[in-house]
Amino acid sequence: MEKPSLPKGTRDFGPVVMAKRQFILDSIKKVFQKYGFQPLETPTMENLTTLTGKYGEEGDQLLFKILNSGDFLKDVDLQKLNSRDSRLITHSISEKGLRYDLTVPFARYVVMNRHEIALPFKRYQIQPVWRADRPQKGRYREFYQCDADVVGTDSLICEAEIILMIKEVFKSLKISDYTVKVNHRGVLSGLAEIVGAKEKETALFIAIDKLDKIGEEKVKEELRSKGFDDKSLDVVFEILNKEGSTATKIELLTNSFSTSEKGKKGIADLSAVFQSVKDYGVSEDHVEFDISLARGLSYYTGCIFEVKINNVAIGSVSGGGRYDNLTQAFGAKERLSGVGISFGVDRLFDAMEELKLFPEETQVSSMVLITHFDSESQRYGLKVLQTLRNNNIAAEIYPDPIKIQKQLDYANKKMIPYVIVIGSEEMKSGLLAFKNMKTGEQTKIGIEDILNTLK
Amino acid sequence: MEKPSLPKGTRDFGPVVMAKRQFILDSIKKVFQKYGFQPLETPTMENLTTLTGKYGEEGDQLLFKILNSGDFLKDVDLQKLNSRDSRLITHSISEKGLRYDLTVPFARYVVMNRHEIALPFKRYQIQPVWRADRPQKGRYREFYQCDADVVGTDSLICEAEIILMIKEVFKSLKISDYTVKVNHRGVLSGLAEIVGAKEKETALFIAIDKLDKIGEEKVKEELRSKGFDDKSLDVVFEILNKEGSTATKIELLTNSFSTSEKGKKGIADLSAVFQSVKDYGVSEDHVEFDISLARGLSYYTGCIFEVKINNVAIGSVSGGGRYDNLTQAFGAKERLSGVGISFGVDRLFDAMEELKLFPEETQVSSMVLITHFDSESQRYGLKVLQTLRNNNIAAEIYPDPIKIQKQLDYANKKMIPYVIVIGSEEMKSGLLAFKNMKTGEQTKIGIEDILNTLK
Repeated sequence: MEKPSLPKGTRDFGPVVMAKRQFILDSIKKVFQKYGFQPLETPTMENLTTLTGKYGEEGDQLLFKILNSGDFLKDVDLQKLNSRDSRLITHSISEKGLRYDLTVPFARYVVMNRHEIALPFKRYQIQPVWRADRPQKGRYREFYQCDADVVGTDSLICEAEIILMIKEVFKSLKISDYTVKVNHRGVLSGLAEIVGAKEKETALFIAIDKLDKIGEEKVKEELRSKGFDDKSLDVVFEILNKEGSTATKIELLTNSFSTSEKGKKGIADLSAVFQSVKDYGVSEDHVEFDISLARGLSYYTGCIFEVKINNVAIGSVSGGGRYDNLTQAFGAKERLSGVGISFGVDRLFDAMEELKLFPEETQVSSMVLITHFDSESQRYGLKVLQTLRNNNIAAEIYPDPIKIQKQLDYANKKMIPYVIVIGSEEMKSGLLAFKNMKTGEQTKIGIEDILNTLK
Repeated sequence: MEKPSLPKGTRDFGPVVMAKRQFILDSIKKVFQKYGFQPLETPTMENLTTLTGKYGEEGDQLLFKILNSGDFLKDVDLQKLNSRDSRLITHSISEKGLRYDLTVPFARYVVMNRHEIALPFKRYQIQPVWRADRPQKGRYREFYQCDADVVGTDSLICEAEIILMIKEVFKSLKISDYTVKVNHRGVLSGLAEIVGAKEKETALFIAIDKLDKIGEEKVKEELRSKGFDDKSLDVVFEILNKEGSTATKIELLTNSFSTSEKGKKGIADLSAVFQSVKDYGVSEDHVEFDISLARGLSYYTGCIFEVKINNVAIGSVSGGGRYDNLTQAFGAKERLSGVGISFGVDRLFDAMEELKLFPEETQVSSMVLITHFDSESQRYGLKVLQTLRNNNIAAEIYPDPIKIQKQLDYANKKMIPYVIVIGSEEMKSGLLAFKNMKTGEQTKIGIEDILNTLK
């Protein structure tokens, strides 16, 4: 028999990893709820008509598709079948795909439930997504996203709250060295506009997005090949490379963008967002206006965000921004603007491991293991166990009659911090041997004292 | 553009439903943890080699299969393709399937991680599963299972604890009228044995399993067609129809099974389990020894459990039992016995809705909405909002400058219980209009008093 294995790019999460992941997920969820976001869950499977065409051509190829049930070949066009062209046949044998992100299902939900939803609608969603990407370090085929979005308002207070939420999440995760990069698509449009390359805006976004990865020279090369001349590139990179405070950058851009409406709008929005953060009484620490932040995905139209943990070799752990008309793709006529943030749990997990930020090796485990010498003491132990559980203490009894040492080994392996040993003496006196597994300390005390110690 | 829709048998869970489902899931999770079970999560996709052949022929057909990525037709045998026989081609174009239950992935996990696991291993797992079943009332294609299993011990204390956990889950869900049916596969084997139909044991299980649905006469008919004579059926049904206390039934079977080793073992096990429950000091209320309980799935070998909520037209909401050698299917040589219980969240949800057991219509929502008359009072509101959140109170501010009445409507729709109204007077005095949305009561108080009221 073949040894069982996991599909490429997928993982089991055992008890130790689960406890850590749960800590991250709970921290994020608490912040989302504190900011008035409400939970939503959508199905793992979506119709391919919902998913296809929403993530660009590359995205379409990375969708996991579900084979139709039953005799899936029945209605396939014979000619197509004989062509052996997979692309021609896919849609005849597959109608459903796996969730690729949380944003498109959210937009579908909003359109389908438009009349029951109170606008502005603030929802959070914490679920896995699937991408048929080539697996590599830090990139999986199944991974969790934690998204919070508001739709139905243009208010820039929402952008400010995204910055606040990011800061609060990182505080509760005890990650102290990180940067929230903020920019605005209008600023990038303005850049294109002032060098007379309004129609090459997208090429500019795409090239700038690679700055981190390939460096200034290669980005310039790419832009030259797209028709940007050296003079334009000088103007663009003088601005992109501007160092200094947010105020300095805003001043520079205000002057530069005197002829660009989009640029002006970008600067005005960003100024309002930074002002709002101040109005909340929250410091601007960790927040950086990064003119070179582009965010590849093309549906953003306003402010954009990205969070990097410093001194850790892991890409961005969170990102988001404002988008217009997300629901348009589903035929909604009403214009619904939205803004959202997404946290990547798997990267946060890897970063926190690297920074050793998780509390000492911990598991979701019992507080107490009850051990025993024979069936009589085990039977006595059941009542003790019940008393512990009645007091809401997670506890268990070793189920089999084996040597005490083996029972203690089990407690150690499961990181159970306390053990009660029950023998004939304990049954007589009612004073139970109570052992702290960390210190090795052992006392003989009654159940009431044990309860008090544990509470 | 086509209106977006959901795949058949799948559902979105909006804020109201999420709150109720979360209540059920949290209740079950708390009990599992209190009993020393540790969390495990396995991937949504499993290799088909892992899944196929584990759920019987019907199960294999109900597996959702994932189409291989890329050019999936490339390596398909041309002859097979031309046959247009879907079954012949499935394995060439699909290698992975969606999780069908939580038990098989658990067994795979145990085999793959055998050396890191402390035995007995107590794990719980709360995840969705998928079945390409015909959707109908109460039956979905995507639904959650909540499983707890112990493997690596034969101790009947585990069976007793399953009964205890069921009772505790139902107590915390406030479901009071329910029955935990308990039986043992040995009892059913014993029945077959004493009527000389040892080799027809499986036919007997399958027929008895339908008693609830098709009634005694049809079951008898089926058994006759399988070769059971009338005398045998009289013996079998005299026992199946035995009414009375657990003690009465155990006495009857002890006498009947004098010649059946399997029957004796069944009765001995059950007696030990019921005795253990008593040893824990837990009452036997709700627990019923049901000789006619069979549980269709064939991998059970010892005690079996099923829970029904009385006076609700919903099938069993929970079930489980003991199985031997679950890991054998993955080539494990070591014999690992296990016992587990599974709760069906969707049926519990439906039952609790029918019984009106959920607390009044509730949502995961903010405690407070801050409303305002203009941009100045909104700006003032941001600091108030920050104070609330600093005190861990979930709160939000209406993001747009619209009429107060519309802001109040939003609070009502989102079931936000308190509203703070900020106008010029409030900004001057620092006394905020604080409105209880349920009673309509409104007072003017300082932020400290608001904090005290909310805590």
